[in-house]
Amino acid sequence: MLNITGQNFIAGQRSRSGDKFVVSYDATTDEALPYQFAQATSEEVDQAAQAATLAYPLFRQTTPEQRALFLETIADEIDALADPFIAIVCQETALPEARIRGERGRTTGQLRLFAQVLRRGDFLGARIDQALPERQPLPRPDLRQYKIGIGPVAVFGASNFPLAFSTAGGDTASAFAAGCPVIVKAHSGHMATAESIANAICTAIEKCNMPKGVFSMIYGQGVGEPLVKHPLIKAVGFTGSLKGGRALYDLAAARPEPIPVFAEMSSINPMILLPEALKVRGDKIAAELSGSVVLGCGQFCTNPGLIIGIKSAEFSQFLTQFTANMAQQAPQTMLNKGTLKSYVHSLNELLAHEKIEHLAGQQQQGNQAYPQLFKADVSLLLEQDELLQEEVFGPTTIVIEVESVQQLTIALACLRGQLTASLIAETADLENFAALLPLLEEKAGRLLLNGYPTGVEVCDAMVHGGPYPATSDARGTSVGTLAIERYLRPVCYQNYPDHLLPLALQNANPLGIARLVNGEMSKAAL
Amino acid sequence: MLNITGQNFIAGQRSRSGDKFVVSYDATTDEALPYQFAQATSEEVDQAAQAATLAYPLFRQTTPEQRALFLETIADEIDALADPFIAIVCQETALPEARIRGERGRTTGQLRLFAQVLRRGDFLGARIDQALPERQPLPRPDLRQYKIGIGPVAVFGASNFPLAFSTAGGDTASAFAAGCPVIVKAHSGHMATAESIANAICTAIEKCNMPKGVFSMIYGQGVGEPLVKHPLIKAVGFTGSLKGGRALYDLAAARPEPIPVFAEMSSINPMILLPEALKVRGDKIAAELSGSVVLGCGQFCTNPGLIIGIKSAEFSQFLTQFTANMAQQAPQTMLNKGTLKSYVHSLNELLAHEKIEHLAGQQQQGNQAYPQLFKADVSLLLEQDELLQEEVFGPTTIVIEVESVQQLTIALACLRGQLTASLIAETADLENFAALLPLLEEKAGRLLLNGYPTGVEVCDAMVHGGPYPATSDARGTSVGTLAIERYLRPVCYQNYPDHLLPLALQNANPLGIARLVNGEMSKAAL
Repeated sequence: MLNITGQNFIAGQRSRSGDKFVVSYDATTDEALPYQFAQATSEEVDQAAQAATLAYPLFRQTTPEQRALFLETIADEIDALADPFIAIVCQETALPEARIRGERGRTTGQLRLFAQVLRRGDFLGARIDQALPERQPLPRPDLRQYKIGIGPVAVFGASNFPLAFSTAGGDTASAFAAGCPVIVKAHSGHMATAESIANAICTAIEKCNMPKGVFSMIYGQGVGEPLVKHPLIKAVGFTGSLKGGRALYDLAAARPEPIPVFAEMSSINPMILLPEALKVRGDKIAAELSGSVVLGCGQFCTNPGLIIGIKSAEFSQFLTQFTANMAQQAPQTMLNKGTLKSYVHSLNELLAHEKIEHLAGQQQQGNQAYPQLFKADVSLLLEQDELLQEEVFGPTTIVIEVESVQQLTIALACLRGQLTASLIAETADLENFAALLPLLEEKAGRLLLNGYPTGVEVCDAMVHGGPYPATSDARGTSVGTLAIERYLRPVCYQNYPDHLLPLALQNANPLGIARLVNGEMSKAAL
Repeated sequence: MLNITGQNFIAGQRSRSGDKFVVSYDATTDEALPYQFAQATSEEVDQAAQAATLAYPLFRQTTPEQRALFLETIADEIDALADPFIAIVCQETALPEARIRGERGRTTGQLRLFAQVLRRGDFLGARIDQALPERQPLPRPDLRQYKIGIGPVAVFGASNFPLAFSTAGGDTASAFAAGCPVIVKAHSGHMATAESIANAICTAIEKCNMPKGVFSMIYGQGVGEPLVKHPLIKAVGFTGSLKGGRALYDLAAARPEPIPVFAEMSSINPMILLPEALKVRGDKIAAELSGSVVLGCGQFCTNPGLIIGIKSAEFSQFLTQFTANMAQQAPQTMLNKGTLKSYVHSLNELLAHEKIEHLAGQQQQGNQAYPQLFKADVSLLLEQDELLQEEVFGPTTIVIEVESVQQLTIALACLRGQLTASLIAETADLENFAALLPLLEEKAGRLLLNGYPTGVEVCDAMVHGGPYPATSDARGTSVGTLAIERYLRPVCYQNYPDHLLPLALQNANPLGIARLVNGEMSKAAL
């Protein structure tokens, strides 16, 4: 058994000052696990925020190399967690062991990728405009800009990625890389997992001699509100439901000092199946798509929730095959009881809707989620029916048949913002439907061709973001190295002597980074 | 006389569908000018938003070179405006001719600088991660990211920069550069000026064959609200008061689809006078500082509103000289009657405060603003007294004497966010007070050494932004080329064929821009 104390992590100390506790459950049996977690008090939230604020000037002034080593050490510590750790994650989430081992690799790979970003140094955004003392009518002063961490960041982990989007997930990795202390609100669905990861982070803090306040983690229900409202918190990262993300966004916007919130929320990830592709490989698409819909019990932000095709013999044929495939999909255990309850609620809403037809799937019952296929009338999209636009979290998708290319265009224009939009197309389709591309760009953060959106690569070019309600701010991404931008702000130095400038801006360019010098990119010393 | 029709600009058409009018005033005499401006109706706001939305896909897909030429053509048209234009700007704002000619140069220089940014292409943020088909356990798809304009932007011009922060000012220039259509709400203080500039923009639209909906401009009171609430508006740029900016921010955050607001609002721009500098050149500092406080009648966002020194013989000596200098400053005409009224109101609040002492300045009277100097007890800063933290818009500044370095540090920590923070210091001061620098970085967007903050250079390295309430989002700047970032969002293409990719991401690199390719910056073709 793991050594889980269930106390909050407040700047290197374990703390339990309240008298309320929450428990974690075995996701498969829904039985309580033998761990109690101390609900954080508002004093503990305040202590964490104070400690983060004290750590902030020290942490943000560490060199990129120091922070890179810190991230790598966290990764090493997480990689070193033994089998009981994997077991507890599986127990808390009902996700299979292979998935959890893979997700651990993704999580530590992500930390190591941010270490590379730190060493590359372009995140610093160094810009130098040297003085022009002879300029008329007025001389130009020496001006130099770079980016610093914005301050303590509150991170809300996701239910569906207990590692990659949670305690040491992308939000934490990018905030640490930016030089921001982090206070994590542990997700109620995997608190023992969170504690194990938090311990790994604390060990890395010790090993790297980082200030203790760079990391805290709190447990409990309702502790998100005092955290987001705390005046010392300067930004929020969140992955979860539209309702939850919007609530945090609203709290942050209503503060005396509003703060940026990057909430990754709701996306139905439309897939458009074009005629030539259906003609050439309709059955293959039907098989792949049903696999994508039920992958991981459909519990991905990028799960394909809306399939659109144009009325035709090929589409009818595809639909017959797809319906048959979906009917054969086995039930799976969801992340927790609440997730299953939400899924059942969503299914009932779809089943009750008079313009939505149930095509495949066994009747929902018991403790597992049964995959389902629905078909909705296109008018629901054209009328922007709320139900159709809302993400159903689980192994369900909805098909829509449009009458024509014209109607397809209008239907796409009626879609809300998305994380992804995918085209399944042959070369001829791409020529015939080229006008769709700019429309998709306006709707989604990532456009896929002949792929299924459920794989989200962690790399420089990834965008896991998009217009509302996919996220609360389309200018960010929560996966990939650009995620660091969310937690940085620019500072400009006017006429500062070289030795007082940050390393990124000194004449000798001691970090060896690319800088925009008098309008030209250069790695040269000045 | 200029040909001012006073009708709204709706996508290339002049429009007056309502029956309410507003008038512009001669700022010096407060007499109404012979122009009436049609208050925009909500239908006109809607028409402008619809037209902007139709123009958006066309405009954002123009090449950077096409948009560069467009910006340069606008600049040329504004440079070509004849003397009656200069006269009307002076009449509407009471700003002197030389200032207006200078500001025109700044405005057109700004447009041309964004043309350079477009040609340089780094704003595109091109990132390419090529496919790794052999990777285990899963292949990596081809992923390519660049940034596109976020959509139609609402721009609210400033009272104090009728050209550089208004109709064709920094917000409009950066939004156009990003590929975003713009709808300007003309500032009530200089509507004839706005109309002249809007005509120049419309001529450039014709000459460059841009879609008409890329620019609209509306007049009237209260039209900002329907504009910011309009579902087709995707971002807001604003320069003005804390009250006005916060109101727009709150409207935008409460929308069903919240949108980003970049509001540049309130800053008191602290200046810290260090002992050795006062010893060496106290009288010179007193003279320079009084000049900076009254420059342009103190109507700059970066006007030094708070002067902090450490109790000492040098500081007392400086204060005597500074008081004498401020007492000699002549009254000046403000931008408009409302501005003067606000100034008088602020002075009365300062005069009535028991912990604030009036040091210099003739009694405020008549139609001009009299420069004033106050001294506040340091306790007001330590207790975060609202009055002391609020910007007094006009030729007034407040001095604070702190007891010690320790108290100075605490006082600075109590400051709200600022656009600028300045140190007046000798080399010895910088050694003795090095610990202040990180604190100032956390408080302000721009740090000056031995300079006065009122000059804001338009260049790559400038930051005209800062933590709240200086702006509503410290991650942006409203001056300098980084301003374009506010209106861009990233999009990622997965496995798209080369010819369907945007030029920025095609293998041949037809734009010849620097790109992050597989983790390395490169201008090479692939």
